[in-house]
Amino acid sequence: MNPVFSGPGSLSRRVLLSILAALPALIGPLSPGAAQAQTEPLPSWNDGPTKTSIIDFVTRVTTQGGPDYIAPAERIAVFDNDGTLWSEQPMYVQLAFVLDRVKALAPQNPAWKTKQPFKAVLDGDMRALAASGEQGLMQLIAVTHAGMTADEFTKIVSNWLSTARHPRFKRPYTELVYQPMLELLAYLRANGFKTYIASGGGIEFMRPWTERVYGIPPEQVLGSSIKMQFEMRDGRPILFRLPQINFIDDKVGKPVGINQQIGRRPIAAFGNSDGDLEMLQWTTMSGGVRFGLIVHHTDAEREFAYDRQAHFGKLDKALDAAAVNKWTVVDMKKDWKRVFPFQE
Amino acid sequence: MNPVFSGPGSLSRRVLLSILAALPALIGPLSPGAAQAQTEPLPSWNDGPTKTSIIDFVTRVTTQGGPDYIAPAERIAVFDNDGTLWSEQPMYVQLAFVLDRVKALAPQNPAWKTKQPFKAVLDGDMRALAASGEQGLMQLIAVTHAGMTADEFTKIVSNWLSTARHPRFKRPYTELVYQPMLELLAYLRANGFKTYIASGGGIEFMRPWTERVYGIPPEQVLGSSIKMQFEMRDGRPILFRLPQINFIDDKVGKPVGINQQIGRRPIAAFGNSDGDLEMLQWTTMSGGVRFGLIVHHTDAEREFAYDRQAHFGKLDKALDAAAVNKWTVVDMKKDWKRVFPFQE
Repeated sequence: MNPVFSGPGSLSRRVLLSILAALPALIGPLSPGAAQAQTEPLPSWNDGPTKTSIIDFVTRVTTQGGPDYIAPAERIAVFDNDGTLWSEQPMYVQLAFVLDRVKALAPQNPAWKTKQPFKAVLDGDMRALAASGEQGLMQLIAVTHAGMTADEFTKIVSNWLSTARHPRFKRPYTELVYQPMLELLAYLRANGFKTYIASGGGIEFMRPWTERVYGIPPEQVLGSSIKMQFEMRDGRPILFRLPQINFIDDKVGKPVGINQQIGRRPIAAFGNSDGDLEMLQWTTMSGGVRFGLIVHHTDAEREFAYDRQAHFGKLDKALDAAAVNKWTVVDMKKDWKRVFPFQE
Repeated sequence: MNPVFSGPGSLSRRVLLSILAALPALIGPLSPGAAQAQTEPLPSWNDGPTKTSIIDFVTRVTTQGGPDYIAPAERIAVFDNDGTLWSEQPMYVQLAFVLDRVKALAPQNPAWKTKQPFKAVLDGDMRALAASGEQGLMQLIAVTHAGMTADEFTKIVSNWLSTARHPRFKRPYTELVYQPMLELLAYLRANGFKTYIASGGGIEFMRPWTERVYGIPPEQVLGSSIKMQFEMRDGRPILFRLPQINFIDDKVGKPVGINQQIGRRPIAAFGNSDGDLEMLQWTTMSGGVRFGLIVHHTDAEREFAYDRQAHFGKLDKALDAAAVNKWTVVDMKKDWKRVFPFQE
């Protein structure tokens, strides 16, 4: 046995401190994330100005003693989810959940056969569904997202995700995540960033799976929410989900939600649609070295191509703002070697 | 030089893993926090069942391979603030801020001299102030907490705290924190817990100083809030504070706020009043090994003595519930060697 390990007593404080000081360099090659950060970060990103802009930013804010150094505690990065981390076409995944859930509940609700907006869902009549407007959508949210406890809803979401399949790719929605963005999340974390999701989607629709899929724990997930009510029921405390909107974490709501839940101003923001415009403004327009990035969906072959005219994930004002504010715009077709993990 | 350090190449993977495995034991004696946890945790707590109940709980949930082991990610501890971490007598600190702020703004608002509830504040007439009720309080919050940006409010709070003094102890309010609770926070963190504040007080009233005073960063602070609005003003993004309540993080609101912001159910909760009852129920009544603690203010000499009849921090229903649910009740006079850091 190496004499260093014959017992803690034989290990002098000075030697121990040397080990500790050397550790970051030593453990690098053993940890896949750190190794990747040192050897070749972002392997699914093609070389070019997009990839360079990311690495330059991270290098600047992590260079100790450099003029742009930012302490790890302030390295907050916020990511939109739909269209930024996973696919939002041909419709938001959460809307697919709503439609499936209405169909699953229909046998217990025979009146829905003749009552809008439920009839539209059961008939697959997307035009009638759209015509039911915001009020119709709220009715659908009420029957699919409310009227149960928080724990029950988590189980419903988890069960649905384990069986539902994307209509085009015939895979679980949690496989429709962007490989380059997974690498970006890991790269940022390896560089001391804390990665958050700030999504317009439902917070409790995401929390059951974001840690497994993105490595983002529940406390780092922000999203829209419905009101909850605390009750003692049969002597046990529950949180009951009410059919009322609590908060819409989209557009002007994103900076508000970020301030409420994180209490720090991010230094990097990643989005893909006009819903992310204000988050990008709030993050990047604060004087220091900041980073804004927009994923532009330009790849109809490997994923989808859409922007200014899109029904889901419309990218119009934010694309114009990107040019003005020098945000990085990812050309998915050109910048990404691979889109999904299952595409080689 | 020790051959182990002649270069990373000479350090075999097996040896390196041995170093890493041994580290928690090795670095213990070098780190003050960990040393305290190993030698004598909670030095300002007198020996007895209260201190024992804390140490027993922490030992059970951190003993690897034991029947009650809980992974670090799930070791969420939530602390009330007023009366649990710092003094709430003779009035909530935030109310003292409101009163001082009204006085500071009075010269610019001459009409307040004759208009309630402002007149009551300027006259120091607490009876008239109480008579103005919730509506009066909202008017005071509107003029003291709203009508400025989030950044401006942070500066106002920080400036006030640097000059305001507690009426009895003549010290900054941030010195009126309980030494045994500071040790408890450190002890939990040394044992892998993530410590959160879940206060009925204003979230943006706490965040400017909780990291410095308690070691709790902004993202781990939960509290009541007013509505905020995102705006572009003179080409720069701001969050503007509106005179409307957004969320009351008290009583039934505490479990709701915890679920919203943390997304995990805590395993330990610490409070001192009926405002903490539901948080304690939500935390402890979930089947596993859980911990609830109530600080009972029994020490008029060193701090204050109050419970069932108190105007601020009333402890009545929660004291009865503590007996039923076997929550630990701290008898401040008996259990604490020291109350404030400045008292030897």
